[in-house]
Amino acid sequence: MRVLGIDPGLADLGWGVVEKNSRTLSCLGYGCIQTASHLDLCNRLLHIYQTLASLFQEYQPTHGAVEELYFMKNISSALPVAHARGVVLLCLSLHGCPTVSYTPNNIKQAVTGSGHANKETVQQMTKLLLGLPEIPKPNHAADALACALCRINTGEYHV
Amino acid sequence: MRVLGIDPGLADLGWGVVEKNSRTLSCLGYGCIQTASHLDLCNRLLHIYQTLASLFQEYQPTHGAVEELYFMKNISSALPVAHARGVVLLCLSLHGCPTVSYTPNNIKQAVTGSGHANKETVQQMTKLLLGLPEIPKPNHAADALACALCRINTGEYHV
Repeated sequence: MRVLGIDPGLADLGWGVVEKNSRTLSCLGYGCIQTASHLDLCNRLLHIYQTLASLFQEYQPTHGAVEELYFMKNISSALPVAHARGVVLLCLSLHGCPTVSYTPNNIKQAVTGSGHANKETVQQMTKLLLGLPEIPKPNHAADALACALCRINTGEYHV
Repeated sequence: MRVLGIDPGLADLGWGVVEKNSRTLSCLGYGCIQTASHLDLCNRLLHIYQTLASLFQEYQPTHGAVEELYFMKNISSALPVAHARGVVLLCLSLHGCPTVSYTPNNIKQAVTGSGHANKETVQQMTKLLLGLPEIPKPNHAADALACALCRINTGEYHV
């Protein structure tokens, strides 16, 4: 099972690939797709799509895990991110990756055992579980790896 | 100039293709892409993308026009539509269609001369401008045709 985890964003979209073989977890790669705010929305979405497509070529993930949006107040910042998240879900579908969405609390619970863990604890556990020498940077990449770990730790079900 | 106009939606996405040759306007086709609510979001987005891709094959539009989202209060209904709108913009970009977004007021202004026209007036003017025997149904398709007309009536600029 090789999971592509995504922390959706329009300016900064975190990604991370985690593989589970029997009981071994490995981090195959992580990073952040950035799009410049001076580009129009169509070109930003196109850049995200094309970069994700190249990640599929490189890592050939078998499953997807995408963080839910949790903007409850600021609709003007939520809508552009939702556009990007739509492109992410489409790209996963087009590549035949069964995909699950997780709330931030789902991810905290799966990685630390507590749905109310703080960001630092989640990042430390992500580092430990993946045997990384340091906490992945930037934060969006660490969040994406935590999301991929959530998929691995919570099994195969779809929500 | 052949414009694909889109009224974005997740359950019901209106589309319409309008061609302008010298001073003649023609409606080449219109309709509504529907996705069932029992499908998961990934599959709904995939269906929208694949149907749009088939419209590109059939109509070969040269330009895109997509209505802006105008949910200012209900974020829970806005986010799924924004996912679908992201897929629409991506599809237009992948097909090399320069695309413009229009607010509902932009569209009313361009089609009726008043940014405060009611829905019936916009639909009547859409029918008249395109020489259609009746008002296009469903409403989402009529809205998409009005959006395409807006692109034609307001020229080539990008917003």
